[in-house]
Amino acid sequence: MRSPRTPYLRVDVERLTANLARVANRATAAGVALRPHAKTHKSPEVARLQLDAGAVGLTVATIGEAEVFVDAGCPDVFVAFPLWVDSEAASRLRALAERAVVAIGVDSLTGAEQAARLLAGSGVEALVEVDCGHHRSGVRASDAGPVALAAARAGLVVRGVFTFPGHSYAPDALTSAAADESAALAEAAASLRSAGLEVRLLSGGSTPSLDASDLGLLTELRPGVYAFGDAQQWELGVSDPADIALTCRTTVVSHAGGRLVLDAGSKALGADRAPYATGWGRLPAYDDARVVLLSEHHAVVDLAGATLPPLGSVVDLVPNHVCAAVNLHDTLWARRSGSLEPWPIAARGRNS
Amino acid sequence: MRSPRTPYLRVDVERLTANLARVANRATAAGVALRPHAKTHKSPEVARLQLDAGAVGLTVATIGEAEVFVDAGCPDVFVAFPLWVDSEAASRLRALAERAVVAIGVDSLTGAEQAARLLAGSGVEALVEVDCGHHRSGVRASDAGPVALAAARAGLVVRGVFTFPGHSYAPDALTSAAADESAALAEAAASLRSAGLEVRLLSGGSTPSLDASDLGLLTELRPGVYAFGDAQQWELGVSDPADIALTCRTTVVSHAGGRLVLDAGSKALGADRAPYATGWGRLPAYDDARVVLLSEHHAVVDLAGATLPPLGSVVDLVPNHVCAAVNLHDTLWARRSGSLEPWPIAARGRNS
Repeated sequence: MRSPRTPYLRVDVERLTANLARVANRATAAGVALRPHAKTHKSPEVARLQLDAGAVGLTVATIGEAEVFVDAGCPDVFVAFPLWVDSEAASRLRALAERAVVAIGVDSLTGAEQAARLLAGSGVEALVEVDCGHHRSGVRASDAGPVALAAARAGLVVRGVFTFPGHSYAPDALTSAAADESAALAEAAASLRSAGLEVRLLSGGSTPSLDASDLGLLTELRPGVYAFGDAQQWELGVSDPADIALTCRTTVVSHAGGRLVLDAGSKALGADRAPYATGWGRLPAYDDARVVLLSEHHAVVDLAGATLPPLGSVVDLVPNHVCAAVNLHDTLWARRSGSLEPWPIAARGRNS
Repeated sequence: MRSPRTPYLRVDVERLTANLARVANRATAAGVALRPHAKTHKSPEVARLQLDAGAVGLTVATIGEAEVFVDAGCPDVFVAFPLWVDSEAASRLRALAERAVVAIGVDSLTGAEQAARLLAGSGVEALVEVDCGHHRSGVRASDAGPVALAAARAGLVVRGVFTFPGHSYAPDALTSAAADESAALAEAAASLRSAGLEVRLLSGGSTPSLDASDLGLLTELRPGVYAFGDAQQWELGVSDPADIALTCRTTVVSHAGGRLVLDAGSKALGADRAPYATGWGRLPAYDDARVVLLSEHHAVVDLAGATLPPLGSVVDLVPNHVCAAVNLHDTLWARRSGSLEPWPIAARGRNS
């Protein structure tokens, strides 16, 4: 097969499967279920590798993602999002529940009652989302019981509680975010039990906090980025650059100003730049290099004195946030034994 | 037609056509050619409106975009990018040049000679890119002559010089960036003439600097964002919010923490956040509101004390950078006389 045109995303399948096995083995050893977040890869091929490695099912962010992965044969999906369930959402979820085990998130009395009203009897279960410190969505842990009770009384089976310790995405926050995760899940579970409800699941996990998560308390982990790694994980000290399984292949198009200008910009990499990031991505071959300017089709790289590779040469760039980069492409190019195989990014753009 | 699921992009066609007419009329009055950058909309329908309003052709960023717009009937495209022309790029450009007027950017002796070697006799013309202060790609103005001469000697017709005053994207930089643009284009044109070359075109323009561009000197303008406007232009004082023609329609999914949580995140809006931005997008209905947290499928909005609209209601959000937002969707929903019509984003993801 002819090499794809740059910029394209290349996956090192050996590194990918090693990353999947490492986390799967840790979950298995601890007796904890692994439900990887498929928003990272949006790829049925990667999902299959995760399920083959022992994942109990997938986490997704939208009903559209759930549809793609159930179509691809995944038997169990959890939409980890406080969906507003209107009649169209309900009929899509009901259709999914005829083919797979399906759960959704709820984080308010109103949302839970609305979901229950339209989904009662469908088999779709609910988990109450708890805010453990990221301050995005989710109820306070002490409010989880009343929300769960409202859902249960309106006819929805409540599986348990979940949280996303997204505040782990900061230097030195990995351990404290995991502690917040345990505390919030424990309090939320107690709140459900006080309301007379059974708690079958305490679900958490984020890639940065994963090694610090309390696997004596949690019963399920939902990491996403761990499959590939990215420059954020590299700069947080979570991923060893030698384990990063996805790079954007780019061509050197200019040496303007004595810097390297690559043909990958925000439309190939995403524009994510966390406060702790040192640039817009990292170059594995040039540890001291930094992407100092990113526009839609240019990455301008200060090579820190290294000799500029010639115009027309191809350079690997690791995106800051791999989930964002993947969602910009239609294909992952999987490299295995020297050959490249196209893996469709089947759930790209499935935002609803 | 059933309303699309949120998050989706809605275009107000009346505002769009007014934005197109305003800039087209200004260019016509000044006797300057208008060649809008199609990377903003990636839509044949919008391109057609621009051409109907008097644009001489389109600017694009990649050969793939050029192919989409020539397929859609555009007779004249300029790839405003310092392409590295390998044999595959050359054969695609040659094929395009059989159907349309085609030009590309060059910004180095090596790149110009490489392009000329593979494109000589094809009809594809070149423009030398000049850096006027954005410090992305482009030669220094005084080096434009030698690069143009190298291209010309190797067999490429050189049309003139172009620049992108991208440093206009900063508060109070609009006028100074336009002055830099004129100075660099004038010096570059002089450099070409010193090398014995004719200069048919001095091309510039960015949406923020557009009103300040020297239309006595420039002979072509290439703005992109002006078609829709976005939160960046709003916050730079370039777009009146009442003229912004594209919004992301989002659903309120949570009131967690007393804030508004919308179902549009970076995968629907893009993650762009310039240093001067006050958040990740703006809400036309709530001037004081700010998007204080953005993740892939959530926008968390501080409504600054306003009453929270109820769960399930639909709210308009203006993306920070409209070009990035458009590239995440497959369809623009064009609203005209109360009805919604799907306009395919045909060049989405055409990064090469």
